[in-house]
Amino acid sequence: MELKLNHVLESQQFKVPRIMELFERTQAMKKIVARGGTLDYQNKILASLFYAPSTRTRFSFESAMYRLGGKVLSTEHAREFSSEIKDENLEDTIRIIGNYCDAIVLRHHEAGGAARAARNSLVPIINAGDGTGGQHPTQALLDLYTIHNECQTIDGLSVAFIGALDNGRTARSLAYLLSKFDRVKLHFIAPDELQMKPDILEHLDENGISYELSNSTKGLASKVDVLYITRLDRERLISKHVDLEQYNVGASLLKKLRKDAVILHPLPRSVEISSEVDMDSRAAYFRQAQNGLYVRMALLTMLFDENN
Amino acid sequence: MELKLNHVLESQQFKVPRIMELFERTQAMKKIVARGGTLDYQNKILASLFYAPSTRTRFSFESAMYRLGGKVLSTEHAREFSSEIKDENLEDTIRIIGNYCDAIVLRHHEAGGAARAARNSLVPIINAGDGTGGQHPTQALLDLYTIHNECQTIDGLSVAFIGALDNGRTARSLAYLLSKFDRVKLHFIAPDELQMKPDILEHLDENGISYELSNSTKGLASKVDVLYITRLDRERLISKHVDLEQYNVGASLLKKLRKDAVILHPLPRSVEISSEVDMDSRAAYFRQAQNGLYVRMALLTMLFDENN
Amino acid sequence: MELKLNHVLESQQFKVPRIMELFERTQAMKKIVARGGTLDYQNKILASLFYAPSTRTRFSFESAMYRLGGKVLSTEHAREFSSEIKDENLEDTIRIIGNYCDAIVLRHHEAGGAARAARNSLVPIINAGDGTGGQHPTQALLDLYTIHNECQTIDGLSVAFIGALDNGRTARSLAYLLSKFDRVKLHFIAPDELQMKPDILEHLDENGISYELSNSTKGLASKVDVLYITRLDRERLISKHVDLEQYNVGASLLKKLRKDAVILHPLPRSVEISSEVDMDSRAAYFRQAQNGLYVRMALLTMLFDENN
Repeated sequence: MELKLNHVLESQQFKVPRIMELFERTQAMKKIVARGGTLDYQNKILASLFYAPSTRTRFSFESAMYRLGGKVLSTEHAREFSSEIKDENLEDTIRIIGNYCDAIVLRHHEAGGAARAARNSLVPIINAGDGTGGQHPTQALLDLYTIHNECQTIDGLSVAFIGALDNGRTARSLAYLLSKFDRVKLHFIAPDELQMKPDILEHLDENGISYELSNSTKGLASKVDVLYITRLDRERLISKHVDLEQYNVGASLLKKLRKDAVILHPLPRSVEISSEVDMDSRAAYFRQAQNGLYVRMALLTMLFDENN
Repeated sequence: MELKLNHVLESQQFKVPRIMELFERTQAMKKIVARGGTLDYQNKILASLFYAPSTRTRFSFESAMYRLGGKVLSTEHAREFSSEIKDENLEDTIRIIGNYCDAIVLRHHEAGGAARAARNSLVPIINAGDGTGGQHPTQALLDLYTIHNECQTIDGLSVAFIGALDNGRTARSLAYLLSKFDRVKLHFIAPDELQMKPDILEHLDENGISYELSNSTKGLASKVDVLYITRLDRERLISKHVDLEQYNVGASLLKKLRKDAVILHPLPRSVEISSEVDMDSRAAYFRQAQNGLYVRMALLTMLFDENN
Repeated sequence: MELKLNHVLESQQFKVPRIMELFERTQAMKKIVARGGTLDYQNKILASLFYAPSTRTRFSFESAMYRLGGKVLSTEHAREFSSEIKDENLEDTIRIIGNYCDAIVLRHHEAGGAARAARNSLVPIINAGDGTGGQHPTQALLDLYTIHNECQTIDGLSVAFIGALDNGRTARSLAYLLSKFDRVKLHFIAPDELQMKPDILEHLDENGISYELSNSTKGLASKVDVLYITRLDRERLISKHVDLEQYNVGASLLKKLRKDAVILHPLPRSVEISSEVDMDSRAAYFRQAQNGLYVRMALLTMLFDENN
């Protein structure tokens, strides 16, 4: 029997049937929004507790809550603004705010912040990113939903990750999720010093997922179904003497990609995608951002329905 | 035939019939608010995207949206808070946020920011001020509505602008709007080095609007129907060796003004109005601020109704 | 006859019948929230105008407004964000914002800020803390409600305040409120240099309230019904050569406290409570935070109902 969904903390917590249930709910949400409808969550309140700012992610959650008919409490920079005192602790804040809402979306600056919050919370916690090495599970879920929606399947797909993968929170979370599916093949394309970290690779080994590491897209473009691009920090790359051009997705790479490939990026982007890519029908990153709304609506309904 | 209202970017875009339609809607909004009513925009979401903070303007728009029955996403300082990365671009942000709302109110720190946003937006953009040399069209519309409401006409009015006019966004936008009416006469009262810029004067010339430049209110007070005061930056004036007293509106100027004159100020004010003016019935600047609510409600209904 | 409740500025303004009316309404609100209900204030807008940030207090008010069915305008750091100009005055801001809402919750950084605001406001002002030496009346009301709820009475109680009492806004406001009840006995436990200030002691003398000052809990624990702990600023205490241990509430003090004593703290806390206290059934500070929601809902309904 499936456990109740208490909190959304890390992508590993989701098993395949749960993911499929989420995707079905997501489809339903899409239809409701398309016809300008709303749902019956008028008396529910979502608190956005962002210790570090992220306008897009916050708006995505808050819009989802509004489309459900609910209400929103919001702080966009709690780390700076929470209180006059410096040593206020996250645990007390979460314990108190739980009295004022029905769920908390938390972005915290420390890895593990969401799990600490969950241990002290009266209401469900949704991790909207915790720390550089932490997780961002709803991003991974919307990434996966987009892959599923664009490719009609996940099993058997070949997915390439490109960029600074060592502290790419979104790439890490998505790799965990993909490891739950059958015959998936992963490619990690990054400069050696920015490659995917061993903890993820070990997890893939344990789950029998095949993967390849490389430091160039050479020979790869024609093989992948999904190209997942992550943010490049120009200054960090220059300091590591990495040739930025190598990891840029532009016209020359587009030519080599399959006709039915899907290009994803969690956004915001920096220098890693040339503007000509936006016009290509394979570029799915704006559809991906839009799916964030539906996936988050679906997740919120699951949390509210199962914790009533 | 009137074009659809896609975006509200600059005051010039409004032709007189549109302005009159807006003012009729504004009257209707006033009545609805007065009787504590609301409208049927429950499923609409307005996003306030303020790159530079302005609590009053933001609250005015958000209150308008609430009085329509709608919902609000809000960021009060997106320039500082939008993201961990520095080089995030406005175009992508607008493209993404359009998925989460039905209209965006944008205050941007660069002139032309609103037009750039509009080119990339899925939903209507309302310019709530872009840069020092930019526009603030809804302020100009509420200023004009207040003039219309206080004087029962706009044609034939004599309107004096006083203050630092060179980078007065609100004075510039209102001058554009007034140039669309008949037999309007404008007076620009400012120190020579802070006078209204040539682009506006050329525009007035082209439209056959008569205007006068002067650096003192001497001989003018008895001639004007409307006195539009703009903000004086004390330090800037001192650095330019301007005599602040000259441009202050106080008891002595009040005595010379006509009994039926109207005193406006976009607020917030600095040193340019003495407190005794507040008690004078000709001081209309708080009514002007109140009209902001009704004009913005009316504008939002036009945008929603025409972009459905 | 009871006067209309125009503003909530300081705890002294409340007389006992009013307080009892508030507590009855609070009980009603508790029941409504418990059954997931809402009230009929859909067309009311509350503006949160926080010049200094306090996420918990702000969320408590905003949640209260949502549970009433209403809407919320919010700024979390108006001092930094209100406007491009530095010399904008509170009076104008309040005068303008009153057009956009039905009540204003104000946190201001200067003592007396709330009273200044009330003199210029079109709508009720609720003081959510003004300055270090100022007031925080809704905190005092929820503290008092918690005492009433835990002890079933206020008359005759022995209440000890412990901590840095000299600039403890919450302790000061609560002392004012307690002075309205019969046979109350107060104890102020603080290092001499941080003791309760003479203005409060004089007020207690005038009202015939007996109190004791001491700099240690010695011999006191077994006598008190309520222990009201306030925040200790570690650095300030060290600079005053105060032994922090002396004023810490932990296991050894718990042993001496009566079985039916009630431990309160306005939160957030710093070093003054050891974590083992949280598990003790006498620790009522999280229930106290929860009561903030109901008391604020009740206060808002009184303001809206009496200013319609």
